[in-house]
Amino acid sequence: MYAIGIDVGGTNLAAGLVDETGALLCRAECPTCAERHQNEVLDDVAALTVQLAEQAGGLDEITALGLGLPGVVDVRRGELIFADNLGWQHVLIGEEMKKRLPLPVFAGNDANVAALAEARCGAGKGVESAVMLTLGTGIGGGIILNGKIYTGAHYVGGEIGHFILETNGRLCNCGVRGCFERYASATALILAGRKALSENPTGAIGRAAAGNPGEVTARLVVELAREGDRQATAIWEEYLHYLLTGMVSLVNLFDPEVFIIGGGVAAAGDFLLEPLRTRLPRMVSFTDADQARIELATLGNDAGIIGAAMLGL
Amino acid sequence: MYAIGIDVGGTNLAAGLVDETGALLCRAECPTCAERHQNEVLDDVAALTVQLAEQAGGLDEITALGLGLPGVVDVRRGELIFADNLGWQHVLIGEEMKKRLPLPVFAGNDANVAALAEARCGAGKGVESAVMLTLGTGIGGGIILNGKIYTGAHYVGGEIGHFILETNGRLCNCGVRGCFERYASATALILAGRKALSENPTGAIGRAAAGNPGEVTARLVVELAREGDRQATAIWEEYLHYLLTGMVSLVNLFDPEVFIIGGGVAAAGDFLLEPLRTRLPRMVSFTDADQARIELATLGNDAGIIGAAMLGL
Repeated sequence: MYAIGIDVGGTNLAAGLVDETGALLCRAECPTCAERHQNEVLDDVAALTVQLAEQAGGLDEITALGLGLPGVVDVRRGELIFADNLGWQHVLIGEEMKKRLPLPVFAGNDANVAALAEARCGAGKGVESAVMLTLGTGIGGGIILNGKIYTGAHYVGGEIGHFILETNGRLCNCGVRGCFERYASATALILAGRKALSENPTGAIGRAAAGNPGEVTARLVVELAREGDRQATAIWEEYLHYLLTGMVSLVNLFDPEVFIIGGGVAAAGDFLLEPLRTRLPRMVSFTDADQARIELATLGNDAGIIGAAMLGL
Repeated sequence: MYAIGIDVGGTNLAAGLVDETGALLCRAECPTCAERHQNEVLDDVAALTVQLAEQAGGLDEITALGLGLPGVVDVRRGELIFADNLGWQHVLIGEEMKKRLPLPVFAGNDANVAALAEARCGAGKGVESAVMLTLGTGIGGGIILNGKIYTGAHYVGGEIGHFILETNGRLCNCGVRGCFERYASATALILAGRKALSENPTGAIGRAAAGNPGEVTARLVVELAREGDRQATAIWEEYLHYLLTGMVSLVNLFDPEVFIIGGGVAAAGDFLLEPLRTRLPRMVSFTDADQARIELATLGNDAGIIGAAMLGL
């Protein structure tokens, strides 16, 4: 049994042929050229599907096509409600694809399908419930309950980057103040590093970035904290505190079997994982109860393709 | 089809005979005397059950017994993990009751079962998903997903009063700083009223309470705000802001069909409901999407009994 998953990004369409175990058998890719009309992009989605299906012996061998879309998706109707990166609104993806392909088509939010892939055959492997935190430009990921993506009654739930960590806090792109992702994304780490550079240009961060704020990356801050630099350590500790505070809220609300941590910041590996595993159990309200495991994501960029395919498997 | 529900409180055991529509047909009650050994309390639970069953024609007419317990409950094992108000730890309620009664026995957290009752046959009537906020001494209530109580992988989820509204905020009884219930419970309103009294003893709050902090109630603050007193209005507006901020987090995570508001503060009625309904849709991240309804709880104190019975219906 095979399905095809396509991660529809603002830059590229990344497609893959996936078997029922979640193994990614082969890939194909083309640029999205998002400035085009949506019909042209969906034509390319169909073309990629046909191209990959040939590897499996033709479309007859394919169970379904799944799409990961960068926006709010009505999964029951197969409708993309809106996607800022693509400039699309109210596109009936399922119906559109049926005009092009004789296949069942499923659609989901791109971050949510990646969480599904990690929960089913990545870091979570077989868990019933998981919260994935993709610590990148924002905080993506999603909530998996009973082995399925949780999106709520109006498909705006599971927005894991947008619960509030500070009432009246930092202004978020979503218009709300104090969202989790303003404090615990890679961007938050970068902005804290740039602030440190401007306050102390001759410090370790300033020297490593040659005084250029544009050279301050999350990786740079993490590396300097790992080496014990005082300023970078203070930034990293504050970052961990915010991340852990958000995780406490998520435990007290969702109490998942496992947290799966992905995104750029997850490259810090044990330097991130160890303090999370040590401190979270001491920070939650019910310290006597069994606790959620904390794991790093294992599927990398393939998670979006695999998870999209899983919508149809 | 009948079930018996018993709300096991620190003060009273409140029991009721409930039919399959959720109607409470008759009640019985006795003091808990929580200082006794748990076996004696459970003997009384059994006696109340037998007493109510007679109203239905005997135990043979009863489908099940459901218990609402003031603590963390492992619903699959029927185990009360701990309940501070009772001083009980690791009590296998299901097994204990089977020694006393020839009935299937189910157990759940008291606030959670009340939320179940409101979602199924109270304010939510038939919804699949609901978040109930019981604004009382703390914030109880619970999360209903797919028509069932959601408690998570280790039964510590759905703790609706204990997600964090302010990192490093007010210290909560649970040991965590900044929990929702420190800001949006009736207690928060009372404490703000007392603070106002101490700062301005001759203000409207001070006069209404005759200068006695112990006379400051949530109802008093609400009434003075309703009358337009400046100080009480400021307290009420701050309270609403915190409550709404928490509800934004809950929308972005759970996106329920309905919020059900109960507890002492809900007695404010439209004075509470109107600003919540007007402001919440403007405060969430995805203002284009359909929104959760906001309703007042309708079952009052009966919710605990009805919800407990529903565990077995």
